[in-house]
Amino acid sequence: MGTYIILLSGGSGKRLWPLSNDIRSKQFLRVLDDGSGGRESMVQRVYRQLRIEFPNEKVVVATAAAQREQIEAQLGGGVDIVCEPARRDTFPAIALSCTYLHDSCGATEHDIVLVLPVDVYAEQHYFTVAAQMCDSVARDAAALVLMGIAPTHPSNRFGYMVPTVGSDDRIDRFVEKPSGDVAASLIGQGALWNGGVFAFTLGHLLGIIHARMGRLTFDRFLADYATTEKISFDYAVVEKTESLAMVKYVGMWRDLGTWDSLIGEIGPAGIGTHFASGTKGTIVVNELDIPVVAIGTEALVIAASPDGILVGDREAIVNLKPLVDGFDDAPRFVEHVWGTERVVDRTTTGTEVKIVHILPNRERTVECPSGQEIRMLVIEGKGSAEGKVISPGDEMVVTSAQGVQLSGGNGLHIVETLLVV
Amino acid sequence: MGTYIILLSGGSGKRLWPLSNDIRSKQFLRVLDDGSGGRESMVQRVYRQLRIEFPNEKVVVATAAAQREQIEAQLGGGVDIVCEPARRDTFPAIALSCTYLHDSCGATEHDIVLVLPVDVYAEQHYFTVAAQMCDSVARDAAALVLMGIAPTHPSNRFGYMVPTVGSDDRIDRFVEKPSGDVAASLIGQGALWNGGVFAFTLGHLLGIIHARMGRLTFDRFLADYATTEKISFDYAVVEKTESLAMVKYVGMWRDLGTWDSLIGEIGPAGIGTHFASGTKGTIVVNELDIPVVAIGTEALVIAASPDGILVGDREAIVNLKPLVDGFDDAPRFVEHVWGTERVVDRTTTGTEVKIVHILPNRERTVECPSGQEIRMLVIEGKGSAEGKVISPGDEMVVTSAQGVQLSGGNGLHIVETLLVV
Repeated sequence: MGTYIILLSGGSGKRLWPLSNDIRSKQFLRVLDDGSGGRESMVQRVYRQLRIEFPNEKVVVATAAAQREQIEAQLGGGVDIVCEPARRDTFPAIALSCTYLHDSCGATEHDIVLVLPVDVYAEQHYFTVAAQMCDSVARDAAALVLMGIAPTHPSNRFGYMVPTVGSDDRIDRFVEKPSGDVAASLIGQGALWNGGVFAFTLGHLLGIIHARMGRLTFDRFLADYATTEKISFDYAVVEKTESLAMVKYVGMWRDLGTWDSLIGEIGPAGIGTHFASGTKGTIVVNELDIPVVAIGTEALVIAASPDGILVGDREAIVNLKPLVDGFDDAPRFVEHVWGTERVVDRTTTGTEVKIVHILPNRERTVECPSGQEIRMLVIEGKGSAEGKVISPGDEMVVTSAQGVQLSGGNGLHIVETLLVV
Repeated sequence: MGTYIILLSGGSGKRLWPLSNDIRSKQFLRVLDDGSGGRESMVQRVYRQLRIEFPNEKVVVATAAAQREQIEAQLGGGVDIVCEPARRDTFPAIALSCTYLHDSCGATEHDIVLVLPVDVYAEQHYFTVAAQMCDSVARDAAALVLMGIAPTHPSNRFGYMVPTVGSDDRIDRFVEKPSGDVAASLIGQGALWNGGVFAFTLGHLLGIIHARMGRLTFDRFLADYATTEKISFDYAVVEKTESLAMVKYVGMWRDLGTWDSLIGEIGPAGIGTHFASGTKGTIVVNELDIPVVAIGTEALVIAASPDGILVGDREAIVNLKPLVDGFDDAPRFVEHVWGTERVVDRTTTGTEVKIVHILPNRERTVECPSGQEIRMLVIEGKGSAEGKVISPGDEMVVTSAQGVQLSGGNGLHIVETLLVV
């Protein structure tokens, strides 16, 4: 009986603008202290913690196509990626991944599946509890085991699980996002937050899938995915399962999806080039190559990225989203498995100038859109284009609807122009 | 008897960083309301006000070579420029310009010279007073007439002129930068600030020049300029002149050389692309093409330019200079008579990527430094290079120690790479 892990990597948005954008979700921002002097993203942190507990288990990341490259870039080859062709909520995502485990990874009905969100910020113990959940399924304690998070306050943002009287691990009922008063009363009854972590046998989930959608192969599922019913795992599975249990996690558990929650983890030293004089409680995150200077400021977040500059009072910054939601400029910074690209100029006629960095030994395919022309000039490094060695001063031109294959060599720094012709 | 005007354009520095830099002095920042919905610089404002009072008089700007192009770009062809080959204080600068007026402009000893600083921020009446000073010299009221500024407070930053008892326009003595107490007492005696505005006959000044340095032509003066004694006009001329008078100016008179003084003139609407929510007294000046977002901030200055980003408390911002004085990165934004250049990437090996804009009908000569190579790609507009028509997609390569001549046509937008080869 093996264990398989599904990491759910969803969402995108501007709650952490200008660091996050429509392509770069919060979980990919390399802003967390990695404990050895560097910075890591939420995805990297969760994966690192997960591997301490599950060093050899197959890990599948369920995500949208837009995130594939970032996941490959940040996690390397250690994971399989199941690309959701459309956003259809958590049940279809988990069901698709389970079908993948069955069809492509040789998982059987008796194997155990553990599902975790990829953007959780928790202690290592959280993953120990996840392993206990798997043990619980293995012992046949229940068909479906959930993680109950010990609440720290009567939040109205979470679902609550009320334990059966006299039991530690049986669930009497669920209450979805109650008011603060009701939440306080639930906590008094020992209720826990539903952490969105699930363990079950693959057979249990395949049964539910077959009942809902008939027997279907992974390829078939993928082809029909965009028209699959949008439904959460909680509604489709948790509410339909009689045999439920939970394992309690007591410890740090945070959603770092907003600036006020993220600030504390970045730490007072901030990130990037910045200088300060007479400041108090001012956190700077600077992704640009020009300096940020702060003078006499108090309780501020200052963040600069190729997409924009944010200066916000640490409390008022909760009002960020409506202000930036309307920004519809395409993201100016994108991380790929082969490196990064940063837009440095965009003209009214649609021409873009980018600084592109290709990592050592990585491959990049450049496709030129029809009606456009791409010119690339190597400004640093040594690599190859279509097998031919390229170094500073070498230029490549890719014309309308053609492509070219680049190899990163010892790392290539390129200025690239996408020109409307 | 004609009137000639000398505008002194000096100084550079980082008191208005990141807008000002070692090339772009405060007087060239286009941040002031021009009264018709646009923005103008201090130089442009002073020149506009000056021309209302002196529509046809010859105007000479005395400045360093580094500022020549910006003056041409901002004032057009309406002025002559006398380039000081080195910085030698105000007497050599004014003497050089007077020699230029005599040798190259046909000015005679009886003509009147009016000297004004180019970075003053005053009402139109200031220029009417300047004209009255010229009238005073024309009437032979004195050999040298100064402008006395009515003090608003006992400042220790200015020179004071104490009037002769019983006279409005005669000066009894000068007191240079007294303490606040002494200043208050001087103001009680009717003393005025020395505004650095002077009117005199060309003959008077040529006499002083000849006495100090012998008779010398403009070309000779220029050749010897770097070894000329550093001395201020106050020491060399004002203190040596018996026949002195002053004309009083009562009105707004400010030095907009620091952020706290400039903020009020920029106005609450700020400049450039920015969005705010729940802010108070926050002024944004954004020269970048990405948005600045401010949330819940109070009494802040936020300024973004290609050189950096400043976030400062409006009072504490007086402490800016020591913090940025050490920045020795070459300026990333430069205004030329032909257009602008903005550095968007700089590598460790010395390669630079710039976005260059050439104004319609302007000419630009590109010289390639030895050991480097310049590549230019047109991304918008139509112009010509060495007579050949260029438009989007066209490329020019200038190799080591060569040059190329570009014409702006209807305006050219170019990405340019300076590459070490």
